[in-house]
Amino acid sequence: MSVKILTIKEDILGANEEKAKTNQELLDKHHILMINIMSSPGAGKTSLIIQTIKRFKGKTRIAVIEGDIASTIDADKVSKQAIPVIQINTVGACHLDANMIKKALDNLALEQTDLVLIENVGNLICTAEFALGAHKKIMLLSVPEGDDKPYKYPLMFTEAEVVLVNKIDVLPYFDFNVSAFSKAVSGLNPTARIFPVSAKTGEGLEPWFSWLEDAIKQKTSTA
Amino acid sequence: MSVKILTIKEDILGANEEKAKTNQELLDKHHILMINIMSSPGAGKTSLIIQTIKRFKGKTRIAVIEGDIASTIDADKVSKQAIPVIQINTVGACHLDANMIKKALDNLALEQTDLVLIENVGNLICTAEFALGAHKKIMLLSVPEGDDKPYKYPLMFTEAEVVLVNKIDVLPYFDFNVSAFSKAVSGLNPTARIFPVSAKTGEGLEPWFSWLEDAIKQKTSTA
Repeated sequence: MSVKILTIKEDILGANEEKAKTNQELLDKHHILMINIMSSPGAGKTSLIIQTIKRFKGKTRIAVIEGDIASTIDADKVSKQAIPVIQINTVGACHLDANMIKKALDNLALEQTDLVLIENVGNLICTAEFALGAHKKIMLLSVPEGDDKPYKYPLMFTEAEVVLVNKIDVLPYFDFNVSAFSKAVSGLNPTARIFPVSAKTGEGLEPWFSWLEDAIKQKTSTA
Repeated sequence: MSVKILTIKEDILGANEEKAKTNQELLDKHHILMINIMSSPGAGKTSLIIQTIKRFKGKTRIAVIEGDIASTIDADKVSKQAIPVIQINTVGACHLDANMIKKALDNLALEQTDLVLIENVGNLICTAEFALGAHKKIMLLSVPEGDDKPYKYPLMFTEAEVVLVNKIDVLPYFDFNVSAFSKAVSGLNPTARIFPVSAKTGEGLEPWFSWLEDAIKQKTSTA
């Protein structure tokens, strides 16, 4: 059975890759940067997105695509920031795919957008496998999850360009070794940027904002 | 594309269901209780298993099956308890399946086993879909993940017979409303037992141990 699944998976991933490319071409035509944000359930993706919107509002036109199996809880929170939000309910699927993102992009005013933030489904596994057409993949790993996660979920940590270590405000209450964690990430992905942050208190977010600002500039300078 | 995936998925799930039944028949023949333990990454499955082994050691012969995409970190921890541990590395797959469990059972001395604890891959989505042949499905939701998870991952909360709210030792540092959470779980799954615990400090574990003891008795009384 395993060989059979593998073949199906490769076909699905291949078709998805093609659609992801088309999405990126569409974004490039409009000089829009798109970022795929991934993590386990409850690691703080929504809080990071809200902090980021607050910081960039007024100078960068942001839209958000929210991925969830069910509910619009996160989309409702984000939409309070008065920016366009598209909710995708995957109805059981453990990740977003390029097709879903295409439909979301079709519902956004692209000529009035600079940055699209995608909040993927809460999952450290499947989400890393499916290209969406995003220019950057980033992930959050929250302190309560433990510092051994790079060894257990290597693909995610290999794919992410930025790893935000979130919830550092609760570091005193958990056995989490930030330097051991950083070493494990660097072993898998030597160029990954690692930012310890608290999306709740705002601590440590400056390097993330700078990184994002540079990425936006790089994209708009190709206009 | 979505319809095509669905068909494939149904075929896979159907074939898996058959194998799960065969697993359960094998266990029943040996009067063994098997429990499938599921959660997000880092919610505390391994710690719960270790606490459970410590409590039941001497009176119940326990074996553990550890599921991970990669690494033997958890199996190494559990094997320090001097009980049989089988590690399954799924090499990318986001859940265990009945076939993997069959192979693990073939490597256990079943006539010397009363209880098999399965630590599934860290994932709130895919793991809930695949029957393994376990008599009971239980899950952990840790306080840092947030109390809104039943709305976002309904299948897992519908399938679990017991929901352990883990890491209650850090409740003061998080906005987690235990009664709102319990209400959400009961809405999906009225008969689910909800036990607030700390697998780290041991707080609140008695009701879980009692539940497990009853389940073991029920199984061995059918001997």
